[in-house]
Amino acid sequence: MNGRLIGVGLGPGDPDLLTVRAARLIASAPVISYPAPVGAASFARSIAASLIAPGTREIVIEVPMSPDPGPAQSAYDRGAAAIAAVLEQGSDVVSLCEGDPLFHGSFMYLLERLSPRFETSVVPGVSSLAAVSAALKWPMARRNEVVSILPAPLDNDALRRGIAGAETVAIIKLGRHLARIRALIAEMGLTGSAGYVGHASLQGQIACALEAAPSDAPYFSMILIVKGA
Amino acid sequence: MNGRLIGVGLGPGDPDLLTVRAARLIASAPVISYPAPVGAASFARSIAASLIAPGTREIVIEVPMSPDPGPAQSAYDRGAAAIAAVLEQGSDVVSLCEGDPLFHGSFMYLLERLSPRFETSVVPGVSSLAAVSAALKWPMARRNEVVSILPAPLDNDALRRGIAGAETVAIIKLGRHLARIRALIAEMGLTGSAGYVGHASLQGQIACALEAAPSDAPYFSMILIVKGA
Repeated sequence: MNGRLIGVGLGPGDPDLLTVRAARLIASAPVISYPAPVGAASFARSIAASLIAPGTREIVIEVPMSPDPGPAQSAYDRGAAAIAAVLEQGSDVVSLCEGDPLFHGSFMYLLERLSPRFETSVVPGVSSLAAVSAALKWPMARRNEVVSILPAPLDNDALRRGIAGAETVAIIKLGRHLARIRALIAEMGLTGSAGYVGHASLQGQIACALEAAPSDAPYFSMILIVKGA
Repeated sequence: MNGRLIGVGLGPGDPDLLTVRAARLIASAPVISYPAPVGAASFARSIAASLIAPGTREIVIEVPMSPDPGPAQSAYDRGAAAIAAVLEQGSDVVSLCEGDPLFHGSFMYLLERLSPRFETSVVPGVSSLAAVSAALKWPMARRNEVVSILPAPLDNDALRRGIAGAETVAIIKLGRHLARIRALIAEMGLTGSAGYVGHASLQGQIACALEAAPSDAPYFSMILIVKGA
């Protein structure tokens, strides 16, 4: 009988924000897999590190950073093949996923490759969005308010439309787009309703008004606009 | 010295989806508080029940269900006063919150009443949205896709605009609005991209294509539209 592929959300970064189920599955996993940048440490593995038992087999999926999606998709092809070989031997594989496995995560690439052939399941995790809202202590939404989540690489017109169309807006994957988006928010008169969070839930977390944000933002940082606050 | 108010997310319903921190805080809390419908059992308490130590003091905030927000706000006034009395005695209070404390939750009403006078913190939780996406095994978003979360009581024009403006749309608080929204989604030609989840993560969970959804939906049920799937 084949093993199962289990995608496990690790939450925003603080190991204390893993779910009870995620912690148990990782601690008892015969085989884990996780993504890593080429030649660098895996953030996902670092979140789970204290739970990984000695002797656990680890499948590292080295994902090249490239504007061209081709090389990354080839990496998931190879990773899925390595996982499939283990599943065919009857062993389960626990796939470590930053945040929630299906929210802007790479687990979907394993799922689409492996779910036609193997039993799969997903353990949801705390999203970075929840961690950002907790860090600012700003309510995300109440009553009939609309929430939109916009990736920062969108162009200004798309961002403007998205920001105008919701009461609460999260702008994710900020990185090098911070200055442009800060200007856009100022132009829309919303700077006073905007907060910035970097390294949510981790040591070094910064949570402040957008006006007080540092001038360079990591990729995993976020702006939260709460118009109704 | 005053105690602290800690809002703790319980996740979507399965106790196994509490975070490690939430479980520890609840198990060691001298005092907990939670909302409940008038004269009925609290869903929040039921999620945490196995962790609550004998002898823990419990502050129940009975919230009347009413289209008029007045009675509920009076209930939070009374609940906040009961919590404040405990905090002033130097004891911490752990406030149990379904899902994530700041996403359509009632914790914001305690926070706005008590954060001016007491130290407060928030432990984020797994949202029902993550549980729904896990149940369907549908990726919420990839690359530069926009996600919008729309409350079902919105009128059809607002829903139409919200659905048109995003690649992935979650429609929450479905309940008695199911038939109307199902018709709207059909009219927009999106039925084939829509899934339905009721009782996410709980026994009795239903996760299926919208076409196969039951004709009556509980309040805590959701439609997920993933256009890019």
